[in-house]
Amino acid sequence: MSSKVTVEDANAFLEEAFSGAQNRSKVTLMEDGRAIMRMDASEQHLRPGGYISGPTQMTMADSVTYMAIFTRLGIVPMTVTSNLNMNFLRPCIGSAVIAEARLLKLGRTLAVAEVEIRAEGSEKVASHAIVTYSIPAAR
Amino acid sequence: MSSKVTVEDANAFLEEAFSGAQNRSKVTLMEDGRAIMRMDASEQHLRPGGYISGPTQMTMADSVTYMAIFTRLGIVPMTVTSNLNMNFLRPCIGSAVIAEARLLKLGRTLAVAEVEIRAEGSEKVASHAIVTYSIPAAR
Amino acid sequence: MSSKVTVEDANAFLEEAFSGAQNRSKVTLMEDGRAIMRMDASEQHLRPGGYISGPTQMTMADSVTYMAIFTRLGIVPMTVTSNLNMNFLRPCIGSAVIAEARLLKLGRTLAVAEVEIRAEGSEKVASHAIVTYSIPAAR
Amino acid sequence: MSSKVTVEDANAFLEEAFSGAQNRSKVTLMEDGRAIMRMDASEQHLRPGGYISGPTQMTMADSVTYMAIFTRLGIVPMTVTSNLNMNFLRPCIGSAVIAEARLLKLGRTLAVAEVEIRAEGSEKVASHAIVTYSIPAAR
Repeated sequence: MSSKVTVEDANAFLEEAFSGAQNRSKVTLMEDGRAIMRMDASEQHLRPGGYISGPTQMTMADSVTYMAIFTRLGIVPMTVTSNLNMNFLRPCIGSAVIAEARLLKLGRTLAVAEVEIRAEGSEKVASHAIVTYSIPAAR
Repeated sequence: MSSKVTVEDANAFLEEAFSGAQNRSKVTLMEDGRAIMRMDASEQHLRPGGYISGPTQMTMADSVTYMAIFTRLGIVPMTVTSNLNMNFLRPCIGSAVIAEARLLKLGRTLAVAEVEIRAEGSEKVASHAIVTYSIPAAR
Repeated sequence: MSSKVTVEDANAFLEEAFSGAQNRSKVTLMEDGRAIMRMDASEQHLRPGGYISGPTQMTMADSVTYMAIFTRLGIVPMTVTSNLNMNFLRPCIGSAVIAEARLLKLGRTLAVAEVEIRAEGSEKVASHAIVTYSIPAAR
Repeated sequence: MSSKVTVEDANAFLEEAFSGAQNRSKVTLMEDGRAIMRMDASEQHLRPGGYISGPTQMTMADSVTYMAIFTRLGIVPMTVTSNLNMNFLRPCIGSAVIAEARLLKLGRTLAVAEVEIRAEGSEKVASHAIVTYSIPAAR
């Protein structure tokens, strides 16, 4: 089964909805229940020591889960994050960051995704998150 | 017991360390084991519907925990986030956002803080987080 | 506002519903949005080193949240745990264990509680949990 | 690479260490960085409605992570749970329960594992956990 939303439409939505944000991550893959986003790291994303910051990784985990939900439900802007649990396993060091979300569950009121974040080109997972979104009643 | 780092020194550190970030939150209180930060909301912090975004709240939770650790240990820039668990309880709507962290535990290798985020002027907690930081061996 | 369920009725419900369990914890307080349970520690609750085990504390966190929900909704047996996040802050050592839950949010589909677990007589919190329950649609 | 501890030795350790517990789960697989445990469900493990209880699943998640750590470090009884985050995705209904842990990271002070719990014979994951253990300094 393919995604209900294409990569192009996903990026167009994000461009429109978050026009105030700089240096956003961009969707590179939209499949059924799975999405990948990529971001070029710039100064605002770094911590002392040159690591990709925790907040940068959390933001990508949140966004890529939002996209993974769209692959099943279509564009549903009013879904909101209910819970995010993130473990930072290793330093994330690189010029670009990749975030991948896989839906674990899509219920009537909640969607739960597993997310892995890594530096582009690295095999090792920098951080791992479980992100839960609430799905609004009227769809 | 008072904080090992003043509000002024905390803000000076953040200014220096995160000079690439726009519209950061600013420290307003540093007490022993407790810190508060405040941020004026701007377009980049908002989601469709006008809510303060999840990532904005996660970023503040992460930063204010970092500051709460400084109140006990002094400025220790190489402490890094180990785990963040955040529950979004209610929409966060307002022109400014307040984040407060209280240390639950400060051990040899881990610091754990409880964080509450709310819109300035609101009594209700918008989101609640438990943030764990790793404390580097050489201090 | 008082609890919709008394301590006696709460314990009677637990006695009936979990008759297969040995050495359960017992409810000692039911107030609006708040519940406390107490358990005498026995061998099955201990880990090597004599500490109250993690699973014992998780079980109490889960049960006391269930009770805190009852204080607002009455006896709703089909509510089920959706998410539990627990941080073990300090060893829990003692002959009895106290668990206290406070509702952070009670929505249409989710209830979120904050739980503290401590050894009876100790001021220090051994573990801290955020427990989320799903509230079934038909009530 | 094989496990530092065999299935037999793992079960012997658990038998000795937790002799006060009834109806424990038993280790069925010990590989490098991976462990599986199985438990026959009995009345004490069930909730109203016949589901395998949340605490039963949490306990198995905690135990199987303990075992996964042993596969790499040998028998280290004093490692203790630092954090457990569990999402209950679907009802767990069956006569036996299977828990599988896979180490995501094994550092100097922390071990992090991903755990899946399912009813024996079912393909669908009932619950998913990330469990973090502290590794004591002297090893």
